[in-house]
Amino acid sequence: MNALGKHLLLELQDCDKEVLNDISFLRNTLLAAARECGATILGESFHQYSPQGISGIVIIAESHLFIHTWPEYGYAAADIFTCGDSVQPERAVEILTRELGSKNHSMVEIRRGILDTQQSGLG
Amino acid sequence: MNALGKHLLLELQDCDKEVLNDISFLRNTLLAAARECGATILGESFHQYSPQGISGIVIIAESHLFIHTWPEYGYAAADIFTCGDSVQPERAVEILTRELGSKNHSMVEIRRGILDTQQSGLG
Repeated sequence: MNALGKHLLLELQDCDKEVLNDISFLRNTLLAAARECGATILGESFHQYSPQGISGIVIIAESHLFIHTWPEYGYAAADIFTCGDSVQPERAVEILTRELGSKNHSMVEIRRGILDTQQSGLG
Repeated sequence: MNALGKHLLLELQDCDKEVLNDISFLRNTLLAAARECGATILGESFHQYSPQGISGIVIIAESHLFIHTWPEYGYAAADIFTCGDSVQPERAVEILTRELGSKNHSMVEIRRGILDTQQSGLG
């Protein structure tokens, strides 16, 4: 079944709460995750909420990575959306899970853009 | 069932192909979609691929919206990730579907951050 995009939705619970509110650490981690999976980084945007919590997005040539954190619950949502075969998004999953110190995590994979193969020529 | 985030994954097929490659139109549309659902816009990043295709992300105080387009297939993937009750992400879905001229679309809703209610105090 051919698809244009591979979308990994990562639920990270029981994380290191301090790390979840450290914008510099999260920025470095998300950029490292993008590089490690072989992606080409095109842009980024990070934001610190008051009183706590961070949103960060890295746009890559192969789509994007994002993270939203809730330090008060030790929880982060992270997505890795990629297209093409040149990247290994699972590497980013490993790095994010490890660096955020998550002791309880799960992942859903969704294929995006499953088109009619005759129409798209993807088959 | 309480969750921290509401994540709408929108599959837009049979779209207007010219619109899918118009970065200015897509930027205006995604920003309008964010405003119309009541979100507070914090940042944005749009990128035009060669030979075609666009990625765009708008960070909002309530999380984010993104769009990735494949004009050659008339297809776009769009996500609206929000937290809190002050926004109406379904409004953004209506605007994106209409403005991109999608004649064949579907949506999946995923609740993010469903935590142990005793631990989180969310219950």
